[in-house]
Amino acid sequence: MLILAIESSAKAASAALCRDGELIAQSFQRSALTHSRTLLPMIEDLFRNTEIPKESVDAVAVAHGPGSFTGVRIGVSTAKGLCWGLDKPAVGVSTLEAMARLSECAGEERVICPVMDARRSQVYNALFAWRDGELQRLCPDRAVSAGELAAELKALDRPAWVLGDGWQVCAAALDAAGAAYSLAPELLRYQNAWGVAMAALGKEPVGAEELLPVYLRLSQAERERQERMSEKENLS
Amino acid sequence: MLILAIESSAKAASAALCRDGELIAQSFQRSALTHSRTLLPMIEDLFRNTEIPKESVDAVAVAHGPGSFTGVRIGVSTAKGLCWGLDKPAVGVSTLEAMARLSECAGEERVICPVMDARRSQVYNALFAWRDGELQRLCPDRAVSAGELAAELKALDRPAWVLGDGWQVCAAALDAAGAAYSLAPELLRYQNAWGVAMAALGKEPVGAEELLPVYLRLSQAERERQERMSEKENLS
Repeated sequence: MLILAIESSAKAASAALCRDGELIAQSFQRSALTHSRTLLPMIEDLFRNTEIPKESVDAVAVAHGPGSFTGVRIGVSTAKGLCWGLDKPAVGVSTLEAMARLSECAGEERVICPVMDARRSQVYNALFAWRDGELQRLCPDRAVSAGELAAELKALDRPAWVLGDGWQVCAAALDAAGAAYSLAPELLRYQNAWGVAMAALGKEPVGAEELLPVYLRLSQAERERQERMSEKENLS
Repeated sequence: MLILAIESSAKAASAALCRDGELIAQSFQRSALTHSRTLLPMIEDLFRNTEIPKESVDAVAVAHGPGSFTGVRIGVSTAKGLCWGLDKPAVGVSTLEAMARLSECAGEERVICPVMDARRSQVYNALFAWRDGELQRLCPDRAVSAGELAAELKALDRPAWVLGDGWQVCAAALDAAGAAYSLAPELLRYQNAWGVAMAALGKEPVGAEELLPVYLRLSQAERERQERMSEKENLS
């Protein structure tokens, strides 16, 4: 099974081609350019340089969120467009699970704790653990404050392995709470398309129309709109 | 300092752009195509997609070997050509050190043991260890038989962390010798240009004319030629 995987939920963007769980090619980019500028050329280059026809892809996998609203939208839209154009199914995977997939070398004695900067002193987070080579999910994806997460990790009986761009949001709270944790090495610290491809393995592809972004909370624009509407209601 | 890093010493090829030790972009490819077909287009795409002008590179780093003779030649020749064309210096790094750079998450209690298939039941290998965040080299690069390496690892007081495509050559010998080892997870198992860039950090760039492949032993063609010549001498 040949999977094209797409990851654009934070500052970096990446695309990968994987066959039966083996990485054939990956492009990764963390430049100042927007994903709408970089993502499709990266995907095009992957196919051109491997001389693999894009029609031979069996499914398009994408990190459907949580993450940057714009980044998630670009990733999901690109995946939908490709699926539509190529008449292929899609697999949406949790960005946090895709990150956790990179953590196998952390071993079984650690809780895997991906964190993404969600602004407003919050992080997107879920907890995982490895057992017998399988990644097990310990809680659903959520937006949580750095302080709440720190208290939760402090209460655990084992150290956490923290990865993702949210570690900078959490570090002070984790230290203040005295939570035992270590930071993933830089090479494994940020999400990439290879993690998305691995998270997609074994998941049933769906029609691209079923692929939806998962934001976990309202965008700032929607939040402000709802606040304005509720103010109006209160006034009337 | 902006480094373009190149890795083509085995089946995969990759190229990366790194600024001051931070990865900006990387392309990785393990397809059936030869490096002479894939390497330069990958490099060209890196520059085009990041909109970084190739003239702004400060140095070109390359894995100068050991490795596949053809792969090492293509990597070093490409680096020399780029340096010549752009009038930039080069940094040649050991393929084995570049691999070991990927192993920091193995921790300090393990010996880092990169192995590359060198054919004839041998591997290219060197041993390293992490101490206080620094990678320390324990022996020079060498070609060694699987049996000798297994005996050496067995005699160590700590387990080894094995990475590289040579693990398949060594596995039976390591098991037979009862050496304690674990295999790096697939994401960190094979050399890539990011490891080359990290190995190049802190090394003094040189003129590209000083860049030379490091084969560690004669090619099959040269070996056979020398054997023929020595037979002739014995006959005369």
